[in-house]
Amino acid sequence: MSSDTNRQWVLASRPTGEPTGEDFEMVDAGVPEPGPKEVLVRTQYMSVDPYMRGRMRDADSYADPWGVGDAMRARCVGEVVESNHTDFAAGDTVTGNLYWAEYAAVDGEQLAHADTGSAPVSTALHVLGMPGRTAYVGTVDIGEVEPGDTVVVSGAAGAVGSVAGQVAAIAGARVVGIAGSDRKVEWVTDELGFDAGVNYNTDDLSAEVAEACPRGVDLYFENVGGEVSDAVLDHLAQFSRVAVSGKISLYNAQPGDEALTGPRRFHQRTKTRVEGFIVSDHAHRFEHITDRLRRWTGDQLQYRETVTDGIESAPEAFLGLFEGENIGKQLVRVGE
Amino acid sequence: MSSDTNRQWVLASRPTGEPTGEDFEMVDAGVPEPGPKEVLVRTQYMSVDPYMRGRMRDADSYADPWGVGDAMRARCVGEVVESNHTDFAAGDTVTGNLYWAEYAAVDGEQLAHADTGSAPVSTALHVLGMPGRTAYVGTVDIGEVEPGDTVVVSGAAGAVGSVAGQVAAIAGARVVGIAGSDRKVEWVTDELGFDAGVNYNTDDLSAEVAEACPRGVDLYFENVGGEVSDAVLDHLAQFSRVAVSGKISLYNAQPGDEALTGPRRFHQRTKTRVEGFIVSDHAHRFEHITDRLRRWTGDQLQYRETVTDGIESAPEAFLGLFEGENIGKQLVRVGE
Repeated sequence: MSSDTNRQWVLASRPTGEPTGEDFEMVDAGVPEPGPKEVLVRTQYMSVDPYMRGRMRDADSYADPWGVGDAMRARCVGEVVESNHTDFAAGDTVTGNLYWAEYAAVDGEQLAHADTGSAPVSTALHVLGMPGRTAYVGTVDIGEVEPGDTVVVSGAAGAVGSVAGQVAAIAGARVVGIAGSDRKVEWVTDELGFDAGVNYNTDDLSAEVAEACPRGVDLYFENVGGEVSDAVLDHLAQFSRVAVSGKISLYNAQPGDEALTGPRRFHQRTKTRVEGFIVSDHAHRFEHITDRLRRWTGDQLQYRETVTDGIESAPEAFLGLFEGENIGKQLVRVGE
Repeated sequence: MSSDTNRQWVLASRPTGEPTGEDFEMVDAGVPEPGPKEVLVRTQYMSVDPYMRGRMRDADSYADPWGVGDAMRARCVGEVVESNHTDFAAGDTVTGNLYWAEYAAVDGEQLAHADTGSAPVSTALHVLGMPGRTAYVGTVDIGEVEPGDTVVVSGAAGAVGSVAGQVAAIAGARVVGIAGSDRKVEWVTDELGFDAGVNYNTDDLSAEVAEACPRGVDLYFENVGGEVSDAVLDHLAQFSRVAVSGKISLYNAQPGDEALTGPRRFHQRTKTRVEGFIVSDHAHRFEHITDRLRRWTGDQLQYRETVTDGIESAPEAFLGLFEGENIGKQLVRVGE
């Protein structure tokens, strides 16, 4: 390798409310030597995702929190530099849960070949990775999308929402996307083929959702929570489903904040089923799901990337998620 | 009414194996007087369906058998001539389980208004009636069709199969139809938009199914049973489903016939779920399902009718089902 430097981010402090740049510290960890069965990977792309906010909090969640001073982790795609594992060789392109870092040495068992077919390797971090599988599981497995359904997706222009809406459309649904800017709404309606879009910055979101969904909402793919959620829940149809994938609007809330009450207005009379899910519980479906997503990518399934450059830009990319700055998948390009 | 004659068919004898014209007898039952809460209906269209063969057999089934000498029943659409029920008035178009007859007097509770929207009233007997709902329940509720599935439908050109394949296509599946003539195969592929079709009159049906389904069969909508079924079951994919709607090839079989063994070659290793269903158990879904079918009819959902004329033609229409003579829905036009 050309350098012994390995710039890496650690958690400097636990944020209260919205994180700031102060909560992250960049160190030079040095390029590690891979141990037995380990693989040294040079990061090409690193993913920032809303769920990382949960890791920064010292509270029970579906994964252990990061400690202050710990190296922060992220799904990455990279190139194998050196391998002590028989499944991988120098030059292979791999994906796995690595670090906010230029290099990582990890057990080969925790890596997979980035099998993105004819799509760019970065797609292993979104449409062909965890966000894409989350979208599919939420729409098909949890949401039980049915042909003719009206499906509303919040966070529609994000990495998960943009795929969820397109999968719902392939499944014969009428799809309505909610997003935070006219530019995002235009993207999902004009380029992704959503049937309608709503900018949530409006005086009467509930009325706009009603207008976009004259037959009510059969499936709500929930990415944001809060007031957007309330506006959709006003219009649930009989036997509707709410697939709770995430609630980004609440991730920076503190105990006691009013917003933590979450979705409020759904009614027993519509026999709605509300179900939260974590994609990792559906691992037995990943091969099947990724195969379908790969088949559709670039054809019925479009994507967009918002990319910042250099490992030094990782906190900025992460913080932008909560400002709604990304269209499509937010990535950090770490190396070539 | 213009006549006091009411030609009506009764079961003359229980058929052994394939029924013949001898098993039916036409009588003049006279036009009945409607009693309290009853409605007198003049039949316009009468449906013949494969399940009727079960009614002619003195054996346990999901409905009571017809007795020899009994009036035979059928789903009909007709015009109200006289009504003693507050929900119906003379001139209304209604549907219900009536008789193989020109007139019927039945309790108004057993009738429904034929709400076919802009489609002809006869569609209440197929795409917007029991066959259409059977197709939908089998594909969506039992078959759990998923976008990207390969769905095989046997009896593809029949009243149920033709709708099942189109619903699967709306749900994002690749659809392969199996039927008994090139004309039928051409109809489902050229006009209904099935992705491929197979004529089961071939030397190696299993090989033709394999060729039409390079990724295997995720959902088999079973209408016929027997050797067609075996050829499909050879190619089931992982986690596949078989929705057993009917097995017309076996309906004339007698106890002891070899064909009664039914589907034979599916394997535990594919984790296939085989599930039979009777549409009447899904009544709570009918309003929802019919609403969707009505929305699609004439647009994404095409149909065809094969019609014989006059109540006298009813046995011929029924017997033709077992010869595969109908394309689309077999009906008898009884009155204007």
